[in-house]
Amino acid sequence: MTPDRDDPEGAIAAAAKECSNWGRWGADDVLGTLNFLDAAKRREGAALVRRGVSFSLAQSFGMDGPQKGWRRRTNPVHTMLDTGTDAALGTQGFPHGFGGADDVIAMPLQCSTQWDGLGHIFDHGRAWNGRAAERVVTSDGDLVTGVEHMAARVAGRGVLLDVGRVIGGGGELPDGFAITEEHLTATAEAHGVRVGRGDIVTVRTGQLARVRRDGWGDYAGGPAPGLSFTTAGWLHRTEIAAIATDTWGFEVRPNEFAHAFQPLHQVAIPHIGLLIGEMWDLEELAEDCAADGVYDFWLTAAPLPVTGAVGSPVNPVAVK
Amino acid sequence: MTPDRDDPEGAIAAAAKECSNWGRWGADDVLGTLNFLDAAKRREGAALVRRGVSFSLAQSFGMDGPQKGWRRRTNPVHTMLDTGTDAALGTQGFPHGFGGADDVIAMPLQCSTQWDGLGHIFDHGRAWNGRAAERVVTSDGDLVTGVEHMAARVAGRGVLLDVGRVIGGGGELPDGFAITEEHLTATAEAHGVRVGRGDIVTVRTGQLARVRRDGWGDYAGGPAPGLSFTTAGWLHRTEIAAIATDTWGFEVRPNEFAHAFQPLHQVAIPHIGLLIGEMWDLEELAEDCAADGVYDFWLTAAPLPVTGAVGSPVNPVAVK
Amino acid sequence: MTPDRDDPEGAIAAAAKECSNWGRWGADDVLGTLNFLDAAKRREGAALVRRGVSFSLAQSFGMDGPQKGWRRRTNPVHTMLDTGTDAALGTQGFPHGFGGADDVIAMPLQCSTQWDGLGHIFDHGRAWNGRAAERVVTSDGDLVTGVEHMAARVAGRGVLLDVGRVIGGGGELPDGFAITEEHLTATAEAHGVRVGRGDIVTVRTGQLARVRRDGWGDYAGGPAPGLSFTTAGWLHRTEIAAIATDTWGFEVRPNEFAHAFQPLHQVAIPHIGLLIGEMWDLEELAEDCAADGVYDFWLTAAPLPVTGAVGSPVNPVAVK
Amino acid sequence: MTPDRDDPEGAIAAAAKECSNWGRWGADDVLGTLNFLDAAKRREGAALVRRGVSFSLAQSFGMDGPQKGWRRRTNPVHTMLDTGTDAALGTQGFPHGFGGADDVIAMPLQCSTQWDGLGHIFDHGRAWNGRAAERVVTSDGDLVTGVEHMAARVAGRGVLLDVGRVIGGGGELPDGFAITEEHLTATAEAHGVRVGRGDIVTVRTGQLARVRRDGWGDYAGGPAPGLSFTTAGWLHRTEIAAIATDTWGFEVRPNEFAHAFQPLHQVAIPHIGLLIGEMWDLEELAEDCAADGVYDFWLTAAPLPVTGAVGSPVNPVAVK
Repeated sequence: MTPDRDDPEGAIAAAAKECSNWGRWGADDVLGTLNFLDAAKRREGAALVRRGVSFSLAQSFGMDGPQKGWRRRTNPVHTMLDTGTDAALGTQGFPHGFGGADDVIAMPLQCSTQWDGLGHIFDHGRAWNGRAAERVVTSDGDLVTGVEHMAARVAGRGVLLDVGRVIGGGGELPDGFAITEEHLTATAEAHGVRVGRGDIVTVRTGQLARVRRDGWGDYAGGPAPGLSFTTAGWLHRTEIAAIATDTWGFEVRPNEFAHAFQPLHQVAIPHIGLLIGEMWDLEELAEDCAADGVYDFWLTAAPLPVTGAVGSPVNPVAVK
Repeated sequence: MTPDRDDPEGAIAAAAKECSNWGRWGADDVLGTLNFLDAAKRREGAALVRRGVSFSLAQSFGMDGPQKGWRRRTNPVHTMLDTGTDAALGTQGFPHGFGGADDVIAMPLQCSTQWDGLGHIFDHGRAWNGRAAERVVTSDGDLVTGVEHMAARVAGRGVLLDVGRVIGGGGELPDGFAITEEHLTATAEAHGVRVGRGDIVTVRTGQLARVRRDGWGDYAGGPAPGLSFTTAGWLHRTEIAAIATDTWGFEVRPNEFAHAFQPLHQVAIPHIGLLIGEMWDLEELAEDCAADGVYDFWLTAAPLPVTGAVGSPVNPVAVK
Repeated sequence: MTPDRDDPEGAIAAAAKECSNWGRWGADDVLGTLNFLDAAKRREGAALVRRGVSFSLAQSFGMDGPQKGWRRRTNPVHTMLDTGTDAALGTQGFPHGFGGADDVIAMPLQCSTQWDGLGHIFDHGRAWNGRAAERVVTSDGDLVTGVEHMAARVAGRGVLLDVGRVIGGGGELPDGFAITEEHLTATAEAHGVRVGRGDIVTVRTGQLARVRRDGWGDYAGGPAPGLSFTTAGWLHRTEIAAIATDTWGFEVRPNEFAHAFQPLHQVAIPHIGLLIGEMWDLEELAEDCAADGVYDFWLTAAPLPVTGAVGSPVNPVAVK
Repeated sequence: MTPDRDDPEGAIAAAAKECSNWGRWGADDVLGTLNFLDAAKRREGAALVRRGVSFSLAQSFGMDGPQKGWRRRTNPVHTMLDTGTDAALGTQGFPHGFGGADDVIAMPLQCSTQWDGLGHIFDHGRAWNGRAAERVVTSDGDLVTGVEHMAARVAGRGVLLDVGRVIGGGGELPDGFAITEEHLTATAEAHGVRVGRGDIVTVRTGQLARVRRDGWGDYAGGPAPGLSFTTAGWLHRTEIAAIATDTWGFEVRPNEFAHAFQPLHQVAIPHIGLLIGEMWDLEELAEDCAADGVYDFWLTAAPLPVTGAVGSPVNPVAVK
């Protein structure tokens, strides 16, 4: 069913009703779909380590990133507290020739490769599991579903759906391309890989390869390929634990309504309780998968347990 | 051989000479002992996932941490750019009932659970592999051995040496206790575990359990159990890839010289090229290892790839 | 009338009713008592410059300040983006021998010498002039009464009331000493100075001199001399433009109720609309005033116009 | 004499030799030309307060500023620690209806209206007064000439030279326009104002008015009107205490050499010891001066005394 372009609110409400996981894991749940990622899934994932090669799926964290300051999202500012130049000059005040360098960072938690926490998005003032947004995230942070609760959980079976390579021309989907359930299914079939309960799904659109070649442009917030709003049912039905893309915003942009802002987020995070990753770098992994034809792997993507955070920078590591 | 308490500089020079890995992996090396962690080791590590249970070895990142501001090392300051309270009031300017929360962090990269990068410590103006410190770490960060080079690497076989439980009384070593090679060997034997080339070794002293019970006190920089300076040879000879402790500073404090500051670091980082982890939380993992008697596991401890960083916050995840 | 120690809420309500300036300068006012500081007052102030000597009334902004992290108030963290050591090594990439140093700061706006803006304190959800707090200060800052509105205003006649010197022993009031209207009046009389409409009043307790001598201790938030809750009427009646002290919290601590937190603030800021300064360094100025017997002067205390800020660091400069 | 376009290094050396103030105020001097601003000058300045009207010469400090991240210079990031929305919801944990808002800022000290400190620029590794740059500014900041030393000093007679209005068309100089000594002299004559020893000179080019109208564009670092390199002699000979412009970089850009970067800074700061202000907002003041024909005034421009800073944000306040 195609949603009415002029009624995002109605479409969101319908999808939310259809896909809601509220109460599924009890009133106190703070994990959402991570509940699907269990010990059996971890055993299954670990068994996928065959060659022992590892891949970082993180973009760099630095001043050369894509952020433009919109909503105060800047690139990370990394500065030094002590340097080798100081150490070389011997003015650091340490004994026996000891020298040191230290550093500090100031960054939005959503500035580069990241997880969106469960407190990141609300629907009409409701957070994950039906909680009142104002009781969950205050100026003191996420008091209930902070990303620290996920610290030990995000390790399991990863799957790559290289939609850019299977569906796109030249390995890339164009900006504005809406990835539907059919595209996802066709890609999985082309890869010979199955997606199921507890999996961590990574979706490559190829946009990151394009901006690497052409410049960041509007990578942060502008037009992009991404998941169609209509995939909400698939995201819910497959019972995946998490999903991540190589784009800024996970879903297709411009969004598929006349006037809307990230409508799929509004269903996926507060209603499905889905862990969403953004700005992942899937390029090297995708090359390897294309080469050996194996699209599942062991994946650890441990968020930094910042107390009360609604998101987290992450360096996901895939091992095949 | 016991070093002369009054000659740290001589002892460091002797240990550096004995343990140097300079040039071992070529003049351009940026990985140090991580070179020991290869594909075979990853396959060996993955085979250790038997039950599928996972453990986060990270302390929390928040204002309630142990840092006191010494050398400008503060606790992380996490603030919100948008909150659920704002969303509940409907003033965020988004359409169709969408609401969001975002956050930002300012923190020293050495503030909580961390890796020391290869650019973190110098010996008489020399960084890892013999490079001039001033050519490696300037105000622009580590231009050569930045922690980003390790992004994909730190996943392999982990080993826990619970020295606190084996050697200490009540599961804890007292502050000032110097862990020697004999203690490490005895602990490994008691556990029935072997330590070898390419392993990521975690050493539990029990100090973190103590300060959790009694208050941080001088956890950040004060007296602590830790590795003896005399373990430099063992660190080198075993060809381990990395080592981490549950203490602020890895090595015993006060240091084992009349006037010294972290002399083992001065050998281990610039000369051995060893990746050192600090402030890890090994409590839950140690409980589990004591219960099932299995002290090795799959470990992913992926640093955040901050461009040019000399250290990195990390959320290590062990899976058994 | 002495307020009931067990009824701060009642006492605050009574004082608020008595002292309210709501509506006095129209519904759109964003300046509060700064409205009293007019051109005539500035002419009067400028005429006080007789010798041409100037005094900074700011404490330093650095890591050695008094903040302990309570409510995430840390000391400023100042780091370098470029240094002279780098410049000396010639690696900055500039032509013709040019070298540079740049720096960055991360700090709470309330960390050192400061003004409290009008959006800093609320009474039962009401901000200055009766506005709903949630319409004034959101995560985007103070949308109505941000400190930037005061940028051009805070320059006029300053008066020092050295209560520590006149009333205290050895020039200092003890911690917990409540300064009453009688103390303020007696001090002004002793100085031969008058306080009136539009003045910027500075009150020296001597606590800063004490902690400089003895260590910060609990300067930030602990027991301190300060204004009695009972001075609310005087603050209102005198029609002063602003007032500042050499203490962390302006009013006496512990507060004069069994269970309370900064009750005078709750009257002075949202109801009187009074600009309050804290952590000012009045020592050198007080020495000079004691020497020449002149207690009024030209004072410029221009807040940094941070858009939407509820407070501002400030370097007040007095000229006599 | 017109400098050789192809020899900035030679021109800088010649100007440095001609204009050097090294040693003029002793070997320990940390104030440079601020030494010219004495008590007599302050008395002269205060006498200029005739009407009592005050003007802020600061641009705003916020995310909508001109910085683009070059050399890690970002716009200020201002975030809230507590908000009115939280207070309205009554979840802050304070008694008797008390609510509060607090905030924090992270910013380069050179991000908006600012003073360049004496440690900001070096010539061939030499800082102000001939000191070795690496002994002055390390990662710990400016250990000798930190901006805190100027805290009490910058209050005196201000002069506006509205070169944009006198020389430019439509009140604005075009980008790339080099202001010469002749332009400065002609402007002062047109205004009927004199510039002399100890004055704080402000030079309006009109560029800020233009970018306000047309968008920031390349205000931060791009082409701009500004002082010609050839004014070095005038800056030295007039014995002014300080000078500030309404542009990002004080001197004309592109600079007047084939390949150069801020050559006038390289003479003015390390050799003359001149306090330079940038990004000042002179628009409102200039309107007033044009209206009443009075171009001198009382000016306080107190730097924030950040310990060891090489620059400082500032809110200059002029009173006429």
